[in-house]
Amino acid sequence: MKIITIEWRNNKIKLIDQTKLPHKLEYLYIDKLEDLWQAIKQLKVRGAPALGAAAALGMYLGIKDAKAKDFKLFTKELERVSRYIGSSRPTARNLFWGIERVRRVLKVNKNKSVPTLKRLILEEAHKVIASDMASCRKIAQYASNLIKDNDTVLTICNAGILATIDYGTALGVLYRAKEEGKRIKVFACETRPLLQGSRLTAWELKQRGIDVTVICDNMAATLMRQGKINKVITGADRIAANGDTANKIGTFNLAVLSKYHNIPFYIAAPVSTFDLNTQSGAGIPVEERGAREVRELLFKKIVAPKGIKVFNPAFDITPHNLISAIITDKGVIRQPSRKKIKKILG
Amino acid sequence: MKIITIEWRNNKIKLIDQTKLPHKLEYLYIDKLEDLWQAIKQLKVRGAPALGAAAALGMYLGIKDAKAKDFKLFTKELERVSRYIGSSRPTARNLFWGIERVRRVLKVNKNKSVPTLKRLILEEAHKVIASDMASCRKIAQYASNLIKDNDTVLTICNAGILATIDYGTALGVLYRAKEEGKRIKVFACETRPLLQGSRLTAWELKQRGIDVTVICDNMAATLMRQGKINKVITGADRIAANGDTANKIGTFNLAVLSKYHNIPFYIAAPVSTFDLNTQSGAGIPVEERGAREVRELLFKKIVAPKGIKVFNPAFDITPHNLISAIITDKGVIRQPSRKKIKKILG
Repeated sequence: MKIITIEWRNNKIKLIDQTKLPHKLEYLYIDKLEDLWQAIKQLKVRGAPALGAAAALGMYLGIKDAKAKDFKLFTKELERVSRYIGSSRPTARNLFWGIERVRRVLKVNKNKSVPTLKRLILEEAHKVIASDMASCRKIAQYASNLIKDNDTVLTICNAGILATIDYGTALGVLYRAKEEGKRIKVFACETRPLLQGSRLTAWELKQRGIDVTVICDNMAATLMRQGKINKVITGADRIAANGDTANKIGTFNLAVLSKYHNIPFYIAAPVSTFDLNTQSGAGIPVEERGAREVRELLFKKIVAPKGIKVFNPAFDITPHNLISAIITDKGVIRQPSRKKIKKILG
Repeated sequence: MKIITIEWRNNKIKLIDQTKLPHKLEYLYIDKLEDLWQAIKQLKVRGAPALGAAAALGMYLGIKDAKAKDFKLFTKELERVSRYIGSSRPTARNLFWGIERVRRVLKVNKNKSVPTLKRLILEEAHKVIASDMASCRKIAQYASNLIKDNDTVLTICNAGILATIDYGTALGVLYRAKEEGKRIKVFACETRPLLQGSRLTAWELKQRGIDVTVICDNMAATLMRQGKINKVITGADRIAANGDTANKIGTFNLAVLSKYHNIPFYIAAPVSTFDLNTQSGAGIPVEERGAREVRELLFKKIVAPKGIKVFNPAFDITPHNLISAIITDKGVIRQPSRKKIKKILG
């Protein structure tokens, strides 16, 4: 079964409702910008690269019926849509990159007619999607040397098909390894509070016939100590100029454990995830989400005393010195530094 | 409200059903050994010291109606009960210590009459309980110098009232700090898969008016990096002769993170948790529990694909070199080693 996470179909955004997995594969057809905003906020669509596509498609969705008659008014309208989409989630760089890609269309097509601009924006959104698909394949290709036969890989959250359009970053690396005939095993951290690991990563790896075992996040150290993990690979939500990397909460935890156990720790992400305007991890905005995600198990069963305080950051920052390499669609950056990143990103 | 986790009452074992917390404080009255075995297995009663008491009371429960007429037959009966209770959970040292304490009664009272032996066994079970209560107070007393005003302490699982009879080991240290007028804040790791942190620790700290915030286990590294934690204290299920410590899964994780962030990492446990016959952590049996605990959120909502593989160790081993000190009821063992442990345990 070919799964496409998000696409433009019949004048709507068609996307997998990821909150329904692993129970059912259900699609949403979104034709209102407000519904897209909610889908992003509620993690029905998530994963940095998929959010880039969602943002670009959302830009078109937001202006396709715009009544603006001239370039100036149309630009104003698009700016409003940009700000609105940008207010959904703060951390994932690709969301803003998707917005920027579309805004740039207006910069290089000054004073074109509104119908032309609308057409160009839809084309740009399609290019964003095509570019994501190509990036995933390139990341997997560059990572090919790093993955060996019989590797056992630990990952967290979901940096797979469901986080991109159709192949994945960290998990794309594993899909390619399988295509190359390498035998690999994967341990998936369940990824509290919203369990993207057990719900999404375990689901898609199983679909693709990859040997996967789910663990609770706090079991990673034990697996490493038992010698059962020889590589850690995760995706990224935003990478600062010096290589400090924001990714799902728990990633930094794994990076420290990897260092202690001398296990290579890799980030797999397209160059669109880099934010060269942010100098280091300290400058990356980290989304804090509601207490109910932690207090209640997927909003159903209350598991903590009523009103108990909760700290619920959605992401953490892994300092660049804990990262063995960042695998990008332009090549592998070993022991990432400001200089090496600048060189690769050109 | 005075809470007693487990006691002998009206010829029955009265204990808090901890699987019902934090929703309701409900007691079980157990008069069949099989029901006690199930209560231990299902974690209705848990925590190493409380399991010591449960085992000792269970020994009495198991033989109080024994028909054996002489010492030999009675001994045989008690041995059967010992093996049965010992088969409930393998890791907690105190469970076996509770059993041993009662078995010893027969060794030092050879050929006494069966009614006398029964009476002596009940007395011994009461002594086990009294000893646990005294141990908790002594641990807290020895730890008093280690806890400062304005400390923010991270803990995992539950090493409090609910893990002992009425005061706790790691949490007892915090209750004493509060009694001494020190202002402390606590972060409680929720402790997947069974959430003893958010269900039990948050509940009892809140009851006692201690400032507590719940986090998912994978958020600990971020808190440490933000400088929000200046001490980590946990309980223990079994401590080997060299200081290697088995405790709830996730403890070793915190120990590595503490080392990396230069934060003192303390274990609080009575000497009854030490197992000098086990040379190091490698010799400690670690219970592996069922997949449903991970696949389903408290057995209600399925959150992983059907039949997905799960790795679910209930405990992990923290090597002694990551432990800043073990706080016991006989004194504080800093940088624990075989020699220092032997000296304290006498």
